[in-house]
Parts: sequence; structure tokens; C-alpha cells
Amino acid sequence: MITGQNYIGNQPSSEGSTILKAYNPADGSEFPESFTEATSDEVNAAVKKAESVFGAYKAISYEQRAQFLEAIADEIMALGDALLERASGESGLPTGRFQGERGRTCNQLKMFAGVIRDGSWLDVNIDTAILDRVPIPKQDLRKMQIPIGPVAVFGASNFPLAFSTAGGDTASALAAGNPVIVKGHEAHLGTNELVTQAVLKAAEKTGMPYGVFSMVNGGISVGQQLVKHPKIKAVGFTGSLGGGRAIFDLANQRPEPIPVYAEMGSTNPSFLMPEKLASDPEGLGTTFANSVALGVGQFCTSPGLLIGVKSDALNQFTETLSKTLAEASPATMLNEKIATSYYRHRGALIEQTGVEALGDTENAGDNKGKPLTAKVNGQSFLNNPKLHEEIFGPFTMVVECANTSEMTAVANSLEGQLTGTMVASENDIKANPEVAEALGQKVGRLLFNGVPTGVEVCHSMQHGGPYPASTDARTTSVGTAAISRFVRPISYQSWPDDLLPEPLKNSNPLGIWRVVNGERTKDTI
Amino acid sequence: MITGQNYIGNQPSSEGSTILKAYNPADGSEFPESFTEATSDEVNAAVKKAESVFGAYKAISYEQRAQFLEAIADEIMALGDALLERASGESGLPTGRFQGERGRTCNQLKMFAGVIRDGSWLDVNIDTAILDRVPIPKQDLRKMQIPIGPVAVFGASNFPLAFSTAGGDTASALAAGNPVIVKGHEAHLGTNELVTQAVLKAAEKTGMPYGVFSMVNGGISVGQQLVKHPKIKAVGFTGSLGGGRAIFDLANQRPEPIPVYAEMGSTNPSFLMPEKLASDPEGLGTTFANSVALGVGQFCTSPGLLIGVKSDALNQFTETLSKTLAEASPATMLNEKIATSYYRHRGALIEQTGVEALGDTENAGDNKGKPLTAKVNGQSFLNNPKLHEEIFGPFTMVVECANTSEMTAVANSLEGQLTGTMVASENDIKANPEVAEALGQKVGRLLFNGVPTGVEVCHSMQHGGPYPASTDARTTSVGTAAISRFVRPISYQSWPDDLLPEPLKNSNPLGIWRVVNGERTKDTI
Repeated sequence: MITGQNYIGNQPSSEGSTILKAYNPADGSEFPESFTEATSDEVNAAVKKAESVFGAYKAISYEQRAQFLEAIADEIMALGDALLERASGESGLPTGRFQGERGRTCNQLKMFAGVIRDGSWLDVNIDTAILDRVPIPKQDLRKMQIPIGPVAVFGASNFPLAFSTAGGDTASALAAGNPVIVKGHEAHLGTNELVTQAVLKAAEKTGMPYGVFSMVNGGISVGQQLVKHPKIKAVGFTGSLGGGRAIFDLANQRPEPIPVYAEMGSTNPSFLMPEKLASDPEGLGTTFANSVALGVGQFCTSPGLLIGVKSDALNQFTETLSKTLAEASPATMLNEKIATSYYRHRGALIEQTGVEALGDTENAGDNKGKPLTAKVNGQSFLNNPKLHEEIFGPFTMVVECANTSEMTAVANSLEGQLTGTMVASENDIKANPEVAEALGQKVGRLLFNGVPTGVEVCHSMQHGGPYPASTDARTTSVGTAAISRFVRPISYQSWPDDLLPEPLKNSNPLGIWRVVNGERTKDTI
Repeated sequence: MITGQNYIGNQPSSEGSTILKAYNPADGSEFPESFTEATSDEVNAAVKKAESVFGAYKAISYEQRAQFLEAIADEIMALGDALLERASGESGLPTGRFQGERGRTCNQLKMFAGVIRDGSWLDVNIDTAILDRVPIPKQDLRKMQIPIGPVAVFGASNFPLAFSTAGGDTASALAAGNPVIVKGHEAHLGTNELVTQAVLKAAEKTGMPYGVFSMVNGGISVGQQLVKHPKIKAVGFTGSLGGGRAIFDLANQRPEPIPVYAEMGSTNPSFLMPEKLASDPEGLGTTFANSVALGVGQFCTSPGLLIGVKSDALNQFTETLSKTLAEASPATMLNEKIATSYYRHRGALIEQTGVEALGDTENAGDNKGKPLTAKVNGQSFLNNPKLHEEIFGPFTMVVECANTSEMTAVANSLEGQLTGTMVASENDIKANPEVAEALGQKVGRLLFNGVPTGVEVCHSMQHGGPYPASTDARTTSVGTAAISRFVRPISYQSWPDDLLPEPLKNSNPLGIWRVVNGERTKDTI
């Protein structure tokens, strides 16, 4: 079933000579298939095909578009255990994890089908004419969101299903009415092809034009060609800061710059406020250790910084945390590159002045990530920007502050984050309002207790934050609002009703919420 | 009353030694005041002051913020005729024009006061907890928009009031809760200072923290310093493609890139469809001539391209158009630089292969812009990208196509535009749906007849379009939606009700529309 080919629309294609192989990070073994990197001509053909069917795809009814997304979910389920096993084999993560991630992926697709039908994403605003207004008549103006054109999506290594081939970026771009070209992630080539086939099968079953979805394999040069292609109108990416920034820069240097939605992770600071910490330092230590170790620390929202005030409670917390993490078994990381990078960056960090490693710092070998806790005082942290960088993997650092003022200084010194957590009682917040206030300025999601891992897919989720957490803090890559990344508004002025698009017609045939002359309503006009 | 100073918050300041002078373009005369370019220290002080009061400003109630904007409108009115006369003197435009523009400016400020009170801009989404959900509990998540921090606004030469000191960018940024630093436009230094004083007076009267608004005079280096300053979080700009792109590039090259909302104009193509054109070629010729000449062609939406099919009707249209424009009196342009640029760019264009000037091509002198019509055939237009560039001033070009297919090709060949107009009967649209379809992909506002000049300030306006019309086609610089440029979403997870911001509390104390568990409602929870 896995052919190793690229898919230009529904057409398998492998004209190139560069071969990519898939590996199992658990034992370093190679999968049998040979994947062919897409040639420049193939990338070009995929984009041209996407562009050529853009008009046809966006003209398809919203209902049919919703059914297409639902069909993708069905076809992914129809891949059965083969998908779970392949994803597990290519990532080192257990199949149980992929049962959950597959569910999330399919739910996302179905959620966007619901978003399409609900119609709120069209953000319809209508101001009717006042032709006898003086000194000048008021013209009829009707605004809605429309798709923008072919979107390039880069798969993410840490979510081979939910943030990759048919993940959130693809689902939201398709939902908005844009053709998608996926650059499959090199670390899960087989998983990517299986899901690609599911998407193409769904497209065929629901009568979508071929070219609405294409997939190309390849490395940096394939990615660059996609980002620079004049017919690509936006990019979705989840991955490292280096990769995301490179894509962002390339996209902005184009003659016609395009938006890049790169979600690049963060250290997800948690502020352990005195009263709350003192109430259960050991329980909190265990809770955070579990969150740090979850998925071998390979979540964008893994808690990498734990900031508290020097105290017995913080000592107890740190002891439980570091002990629990030291005792946790090393586990296979996503791939060799990520395992190597984890130990290299972690090593460079714990060599910094004032940083103390609380546990064994050896490389566990075999691409396994060994959890580790480190500790530093507030002043050293404030003085050294290197300590503010994300370490991707099961690592966390306790920052011991002299007092809550220093905690505020730490919060103010941070770069942008996906999440920030106040581990606090209500009294803690009221006694030190400036800590949460400062943290709120830095994050996309602000938690009151709990741990940042676990990203609910819903209307109210904000997954994205000030740079470098993401390149566009105005948007989210998780939840219904993600669709707004791939649309733009257009105003129709003085159009006859029968020539207007459905969402703007007087009769409101879609029955959607609209703002008419400033009032929100589902009424007809 | 005009001092020539910069304003660091409410503090006049002129520490520099570079002097700028204001000129009357009508006769080249110099105004008596000497304006001091802000020094690097002064720019820095203005941004620091803005940053230091950001917390205080955003903590002020929405109602007070709305009153601040209304007070600005009142204080602008209180400047009386002195403002109109100064604006006229510095721009060459008649005082009557500024009566209208002042009204528009004040209405914009009041409209944003209304936007603040309405609360829809907060885009509140609430998903309540389901703590007994299996396998994992659903946490309470509540999302709203928050301000982003100090915003730099560049005044526009062609709207000294409505798109400058207290224009749309400033009004929307302040409405969203951000301090603003204006770089006054060098072409209307006095107007800028008068309006600055009005804003500061309003801030004082309504108890806003000093620093919520600052104004610095200067040229490119002052602008660059603002854009590069790490505490500036977004930029608003209206002006040339060169200026806008330079700011955009600088902002994206920052360690922390920031959004730039540059509205850079366009050629605003109008497609003259056969049936409609034949019905009244001369009337349409007059209508478009008036639109081209309006404000000496210095509107972002001036119709610079008129595309039709070779026919008697097009000949009649062109003759009326060119004759009307040839007979129009030359009028003073905004400043010497713009007048010089008009003739230079227009001259370069009419020298291109296949372009025929239909009238006198001489420079009218005295900074006066003389209207001109040119003509070219569709093939020459398609072959030469130079003909696609905007000429800022009272110039328009008729593109004579062989047939409607060539019109579609022209529409497809265009760059992004603020507006596109279908001069058409309903039959024309139905007979050639691909023309409007292609045009819709290129524009922010799609008109059915009428002329593109005249930009209504309302909910449904889209003033912005695909690049190079603007650097961010997802947003508008006119109308209520402009506020969304200066906010970003934050999600509160599991916060106790009494610690939540007002818009997110169960009791919905602001009485605003919210989406609660997917349903739009004003109800309490």
C-alpha cells in the first residue's frame, strides 16, 4: 500500500532520483520502502494543479465541502491498525498514543465540517444602502470571508497525525476553501503516504476536483520551492524555531509576501506561588514531573520552566520533581535528530553559570530521552538569555527566586510563550497580581493551576502566542478559529441580490448569523 | 499655538538640531514655524513612556476608553477653522474638503467608541468545563482579544486628518487599548501638531495616563527607529509602495517580527462590460473622468485602469473621458514631491510601447497636477508589467481588449488591488462570469457599477487587499473591523470567576454577544 511516491493531485509520481528512507527510532532499523523526493517539476506541477482547481473547489457548496472533510475522517479510520502501527514504528511512540491522536485528528476534521456549516467563520457584515442620504448616498456594502488560494502545509514530527498530513492546518485550509499541498515530514514518510491516500480517496468519493490535495516528499529545497512559489498564498508549519523562522523570512522576502503560520513551541513557564505551593509541594512535584515526561517531553506545551520563591516548599517540590524524573525510564524519542538535539542543547544549558543538574546527565543512548531537572537562581536566569531557550524533550528547570518581585521580573524577561501557568490560590493572585499580569502579556493561554500539556480542540482554545511561540500571535493553530488563517475579507458594493454569493443574499439562505446594519441577527433582509 | 515641538506624552520636547519646515504647495511659501526633528533619545523616551503606561491604559474601563475617543473628536472640533485653514494651506486642498474630512475623522473616533461599547470586537468564546468527561476532563476555557502594546502610526499625506495623527489607525489602536506614537507626516507638520494637542487635551480631560499618545516629527531615520524599537508591537501606515514595503521589511527583520498594516494603494481597475458600456458610453466617460480628477487623483481608490472591449462604445467612452480630463483645470497637488513624482512616473509610462497619450502631456508647473488619459491595447498591457503600476495623481489608462477573454486575461494578470469595479449590466455578469470571478480574487472591494472613490466608514467596508494594495489582506484600515489589527487572543484556562476579566465572567456584566459552548448568546452562564 505504501509506494514511496509523491501525489500530484490523485496522480502518483516519482520522477526524481533522490531516495528517502523511513526509520524506526527504537532500533534504528530501516523500513523497506524507498520514497522519492519530489523534483522541482513535480512540486511545480502540484502547485499548478492546485491553482487550476482553486476556482472549482471554492465554487463547491459549503455542505459538500463539509462532507469532504468528514469523508477524510472516515477514510483515515478505514486505514485501521496499519496506520497506528506505522505511526508508532516511525515515531517511537506507543500505538495507544496514536489511537488517541487519530481520534483527535478525525474529530478535528469533523469539527471543521461543523464550522463550515455554522457559517460564523464567514464573518458576514451587511450595511444596506441609504440612497437618499445627504450629502452623498450610502451604497450597499456586504462583506464576507473568502479563501485565498493554494496553501502549503509542513507536517510536524511530534504529531504525525494531528499536526501533519491531514492535521489541523490541512483541515482548516481545506475548510476555508483552499487547495492544500503537504510537504510530508521526513520522519514519518509512510504514515504520511497512508494519510495522503485517505485524503485522496475521500476527495474522489465526494467528487472533489483532483488537485485539491497534493503531497510532495522532500527536504529543505522542496520546502523552499513551495514557500517561494508565486501561486502559494499561505503556509502552515509546526516545528522548530529555526525552521519556522527560515520559512517566515523566505515568505516575507517574496515579491508578494504571504502569511506564515508557524507554531514553534515555547518553554511554557509555570509560576509556583507561595500559598499554593506550600499546600502540597510533593503532590505538585509529581504532577509536574508527569507533565514533563509525557510523550518524552515532546509536546509544544511541555512545562520547561518552573519558577518559585526560595523556601522549604520549593525545596520539597524540587526534590519530588527531580527524583520522579530521575526514576522515570528513558523512552524513545521521535527520531535520531531530535534525540541528539535534546542532549546537545540540554548539555549546553546545564553548563551555564549557576545551573545545577539534579540527576544523571548521561545520554541514555538508542535515541532514548532521559528526563532531567535542573535548577538555577532567579538572578542567574535573568542575566542569561541562553537559559530562556526551549529544550525540546523531557527536561525542566526550576528557577529559584528571592521573592515574588523577582518572579515578576522573570515573567517580564520572558519571550513569547504558547502557555503560562499560575500555580496559585486565589489569595496568591490577589496578593501578587503583577505576576499573572506580566505573564498574561507573554502567552496565548493562561492557566490557573493544572499543567499546560493537553490542548483542547474547541472554540475557546488559543494555541499560538507572541513570537517566538508563533510567527502570528493573532491566530491559533488549534480549535475552530484556526480557519481564519486561510481566508481574507471581500466587500461587495451595490451588487444585485441574485448575483451575490449565498452568505450575502437578502434571504440568508444559509440561515447563518450575520451583522446587519450593526445588529447581529439570523433574519432575512 | 503651533510650537514645532515633539510631544513625549503631554511633554513638549525639542532637543534636536534638525529643523523641518512646513510649506504651502500652492505657492511654495514657507510657514513661519520651525519644527524640530525628534532625536533618538526623544523617540526612545516616547516609546518607553508608552510602554510604561500600557498596563494602566488597558486597565481603564472600556467605557472610559470610549469617552476618551469621543473627547478627541470634541477637541478636534474645538480647534475650529484654524485646523481647516492649516490643513488646506499645507496640502493645497480646499478648506471645504477638510470640513468633510474633519467630519469623517470625528465620526471615525465616535464609531470606535461605539465599537468598544458593543464588545463584539472582544470576540469572546467560552467553553465551560466538563470535569467528568472520560478519558480526560474538559477544562473551562475562555478566550477574548487583548491589546498588544505600543503601536507606531505613520501619518498619510493624502488624508492629513482622516488617515493621520488621529485618523483611523490611531483611533483603532487606541480603541483596542494600545498606546500610540505618531510619526507626523512631514508634509503637514502644523496640522499634525494641532491634532496632537487635541488628542493630549482629550487625554487630560478624560484622565488617561500621559504617554497613551506621543508624537514625534522626523524623516526616515525617526520612522526606522520606531519600527525597530523592541517595545513597538505593530505599525500602521498609509502611503507609497516603496515606503510601506521598506517598513514591512524592517519589521520582519526584527528579532521579534511585528505586524505591519501598510495600505499602499492600487490602480483600481474598472471593467467596462459591453452591454452596460453601450447603454451610456458618454455618461460613463464623464462619471469616470470626475472620479479620476477628484482630489487631484490623490485617493488610494482613484480609478487608474479602465478595461473594455474594442468597440464604438469604447471609443465614445474614451473620447468623452479624455476630453473631460483634458479640459479639467490643473490643481495643486499635496506637495512638491508628489507633483514631481506624478509627472515622472506618468512620463515613464506613456513612453512604453503601445501607449498613446490622449491629451497634453506637459507639466502644468506650480505643483499642479494636470489630468491625463492614456490608451493601450490589451496585448501590450499584458506584455508589460510596467503598465500595471499605480500612477498617483489624476491619470487613467484605457485598456482596449480584443474581446472579453482578453479582459479576463487582464484581470488575471493584475496584482492585488484595493478595489475592482464591474461596470456591467446583470446580463454582462451572467454572460461573462469569469471576469468578475477573476477580479474578485485580486481585490478587497468589488463594486457593481459606480466608481471606487468614496470609502464608506462602516462595518462592511474592506479597505485593504492582496499585496501590493496592502501588506495584510486579512485586515482593513477603514471601518469597525480595523480594530482587529491591534489585538490578539488569549485563552484563560480554569480561572475562578472573580479573577476573570469582565468580558469573560459568568454574569456577562458588559451584556455583550458571546459564543458559549458554540452558541451565540448574550445570556449569563
